[in-house]
Amino acid sequence: MAELKVGFIGTGVMGAPMARNVLRAGFPVTVHNRTRSRAEPLLNEGASWAASPAELAAGCNIVVTCVSDTPDVRAVVLGPSGVIEGASRGATVIDMSTVSPTATREIAERLEAAGVDMLDAPVSGGQKGAIEGALSIMVGGKPEVLARCRPVLDAMGKTIVHCGGHGQGQMVKLCNQIAIAGNLLAAAEALTFARKAGLDLATVIEAVGAGAAGSWALNVLGPRMAARDFAPGFMVKLQLKDLRLVMQEASELGVPLAGAAIAQQLFTAIQAEGAGDEGTQAIVRAVEKLAGL
Amino acid sequence: MAELKVGFIGTGVMGAPMARNVLRAGFPVTVHNRTRSRAEPLLNEGASWAASPAELAAGCNIVVTCVSDTPDVRAVVLGPSGVIEGASRGATVIDMSTVSPTATREIAERLEAAGVDMLDAPVSGGQKGAIEGALSIMVGGKPEVLARCRPVLDAMGKTIVHCGGHGQGQMVKLCNQIAIAGNLLAAAEALTFARKAGLDLATVIEAVGAGAAGSWALNVLGPRMAARDFAPGFMVKLQLKDLRLVMQEASELGVPLAGAAIAQQLFTAIQAEGAGDEGTQAIVRAVEKLAGL
Repeated sequence: MAELKVGFIGTGVMGAPMARNVLRAGFPVTVHNRTRSRAEPLLNEGASWAASPAELAAGCNIVVTCVSDTPDVRAVVLGPSGVIEGASRGATVIDMSTVSPTATREIAERLEAAGVDMLDAPVSGGQKGAIEGALSIMVGGKPEVLARCRPVLDAMGKTIVHCGGHGQGQMVKLCNQIAIAGNLLAAAEALTFARKAGLDLATVIEAVGAGAAGSWALNVLGPRMAARDFAPGFMVKLQLKDLRLVMQEASELGVPLAGAAIAQQLFTAIQAEGAGDEGTQAIVRAVEKLAGL
Repeated sequence: MAELKVGFIGTGVMGAPMARNVLRAGFPVTVHNRTRSRAEPLLNEGASWAASPAELAAGCNIVVTCVSDTPDVRAVVLGPSGVIEGASRGATVIDMSTVSPTATREIAERLEAAGVDMLDAPVSGGQKGAIEGALSIMVGGKPEVLARCRPVLDAMGKTIVHCGGHGQGQMVKLCNQIAIAGNLLAAAEALTFARKAGLDLATVIEAVGAGAAGSWALNVLGPRMAARDFAPGFMVKLQLKDLRLVMQEASELGVPLAGAAIAQQLFTAIQAEGAGDEGTQAIVRAVEKLAGL
């Protein structure tokens, strides 16, 4: 098999540490980013620069995209000077952004027609997981393409799960976001009830978190809710972007999601406060506000 | 300190194994139950029988009540031939049922006027926790009364948390039920979305359950939802009883609980199917039904 030459498009909060781990694992890495200055640290560590997605794709057989939203992926892959203009037949695009599963299937088809494979491979684990190479990676696409790309994904993640065909990695990521949103809502409601009842929140989390009521949201973010620490692990505005994708897809699938919808509205209330850059635990403030706190 | 002579009122699914553990820890145990036959196994193991709560209380300095609902506690403690008629000054009633915090405070006051202490000490951990003596016990009442009763509680539970004054153990239990209901709703929504998206549910739980979207509900009950195993760990009808208490109390405190309210309505749909005796994971069927499955 030919050497894996890896390109990274998008060297932001997630993309930069992911590219760094691939570089450190010994793969040649080329990067492209809308704002070149944000890629400088990687260039200093040995990555090469490409002036456009097309130029990057011309020199790589694996192109990782890690951008913000569906239109961004579409633009860097299919747009002018996009990946599709430079990529050789037999190359693979791995989209690690969280974007629309439906759009993912369309992009995969367009690439396939050009002889380019695609994997959707959204991640969970946040910036911490990206830095530590400990992400969970949810992969959609052909198993043999995943097998070929696995050494690169291994450099970025600890758990790599094949979820099905094109778009199914994105679908599992949306399941993840539905569960997170609901668990956050549950934790926020339990702790707001507790606060109004005059209970000590640390005691409640201790008494409740270890058993059948436990969740990552309650056990990890609950103490931050109690401490009024709203620094972002994962930002409200990104949770809202993901819930928009959830609701679009749920609407197409015909799945009413009453719980996730309520969480979405409460996150919207936090965003309306101008606090979209805060962590998702800020949802507790919306529940408190409704309770007159 | 006088020997702790323990009475148990209510030897049902939870009360019987709890009384058994106290008996095995070496305390003299007297029992009373509405239906005597259900107490027979305990009598064969060395417990004594009392014909009424009052008679039971006359021979014990700790009286544990473990009954179904608020009116039951009120009846066995304050009603005709109730505990209050037989209890000596300095005795303690430990109510381990899940009942109204407000009613708990009233009962505690009535007992106090008769020189009898009270602890509210609802539990979580289910029948399994009761059998194994591994319950979480959430205690409201005076710390010195808890200290005096702790050897008896230690025989039944692994985690014993003092939550505050009278009723605050019940309040923490209600926080527990808010969190459980919300986490179950989140798991049911994520898995219904997954099912309609054609995903393999075991893969979803594997990919999602270990990270920030994880919860006891998803990781333990999610696989049962996937396997269509609706055998009760905790019954829908009991979850509904507890959510009724949650909503009563939330209404008095002025805390809107939109997420818990939706869970309550979906559990009601399961109860309306005649499936109130199934486990709470059956909530997934209500979400599926709304999604046309």
